[in-house]
Amino acid sequence: MSIPFGEQLHEAHILVVGASQGIGLGFVTHLLTLPRVARVYATYRQPETATGLLALAHPHLVTLPMDATDEGQIAFALAEIGAITQRLDGVINCVGFLHSGGLQPEKSVRQLDGEQLLEYFRVNSIPTALLAKQVLPLLKRSDRSFFTSISAKIGSIGDNRLGGWYGYRASKAALNMFLKTIAIEYSRKSPNTTVVALHPGTTDTRLSQPFQGNVPADKLFTVERTVTQLWEVICGLQPSDNGGFFSWDGTPLPW
Amino acid sequence: MSIPFGEQLHEAHILVVGASQGIGLGFVTHLLTLPRVARVYATYRQPETATGLLALAHPHLVTLPMDATDEGQIAFALAEIGAITQRLDGVINCVGFLHSGGLQPEKSVRQLDGEQLLEYFRVNSIPTALLAKQVLPLLKRSDRSFFTSISAKIGSIGDNRLGGWYGYRASKAALNMFLKTIAIEYSRKSPNTTVVALHPGTTDTRLSQPFQGNVPADKLFTVERTVTQLWEVICGLQPSDNGGFFSWDGTPLPW
Repeated sequence: MSIPFGEQLHEAHILVVGASQGIGLGFVTHLLTLPRVARVYATYRQPETATGLLALAHPHLVTLPMDATDEGQIAFALAEIGAITQRLDGVINCVGFLHSGGLQPEKSVRQLDGEQLLEYFRVNSIPTALLAKQVLPLLKRSDRSFFTSISAKIGSIGDNRLGGWYGYRASKAALNMFLKTIAIEYSRKSPNTTVVALHPGTTDTRLSQPFQGNVPADKLFTVERTVTQLWEVICGLQPSDNGGFFSWDGTPLPW
Repeated sequence: MSIPFGEQLHEAHILVVGASQGIGLGFVTHLLTLPRVARVYATYRQPETATGLLALAHPHLVTLPMDATDEGQIAFALAEIGAITQRLDGVINCVGFLHSGGLQPEKSVRQLDGEQLLEYFRVNSIPTALLAKQVLPLLKRSDRSFFTSISAKIGSIGDNRLGGWYGYRASKAALNMFLKTIAIEYSRKSPNTTVVALHPGTTDTRLSQPFQGNVPADKLFTVERTVTQLWEVICGLQPSDNGGFFSWDGTPLPW
């Protein structure tokens, strides 16, 4: 009875958050090639690091400045989007960081720092919760929609065998809990929306760059491959997948 | 072959963090009655709210002011403890909050607030990671020790059926990830330490007070009952339990 999301896709309006670079920019580029996508809304934090996105200048693309850690900026961007479209059919949040300037993932408890840990939650976990609050009115008006964030298998508590990367791991576990909790609330308030966490696999982006040495070549995906695979997972989503955590090949992951 | 922790307990030195009230204070009171516990180190944040603890004035009790969100204060308190004992045989972190002043757990996405979410992680998740860093030298010197924090079944992503309480849930999921990651690192650096997350059950404390209306009387534990039950779980810990998440009756919980 259930029809996968992709088959219902029609004149779709999709929001990609954190679209400056990496997987976010890859999604924008990919979605703009799809005839069934009517418009892509893409947010970036700083124009200086979003030159690739801003250069796209596609007629179906709307770019918006937005810091996803700031609810006021989310509300402002959503108001702009709401002036263009009555509904959103999909939201993909790609905001996240693993290292930044002097901030590196912790190899051991010795490297733990309270402010750094807080920063992981502020950037990797909280924006998804704030987005879920602000996009609900637009998602509700779609006959069939999805809400997803890029999580990571390394954020699976059950799958954790190697340890380390405390802040990143915990921030993705927290993100997964947010998504599961959003899925439950949305099932009552926006029952046509499917909410999932996605694991992209290790992708050749700035995020993974310092850590690619340990990754076998066939396990390091190009951005194009990752977004194609994840888009396939999204298009295959059934309503019964609501609240799930899926890998790039569609297999469910443990929490 | 494995001997449960409790059977090896001898002249034990145990640190209870967040011992002002509730389960923390209950643990201190309980541990002081045990002949095999030589000394209890109990931390509190503010003397004004720790009157019950400070009134105990037991010869085996050492009380220390310490804000567990502040690594400098943790290091200072641990240095004081290190001047008294060469080793710690157990650490129980009871720091956590669900509501505080105007801050209430969120029933819906409408109530989400970035600063409030951050506060949940700052208080409920991060102190355990900072403690794990600072107590490692003292735990290593014990022949058999444990490191645990009070988590909550409501922090289980897999068990989440009702939704709501976004910040509290996500902060406990993050705490669980920290504990699992600490367990892995400790298994190399302090292999005699067993690290677990504990679910106390709903306990008649200030934390649960506003929400007790929905709890059947036989599911609402007194503090005395909760600490007795959790202490039994701790005493039954085997090295193979390292990295687990256990309920008050010793049953394993899903992540």
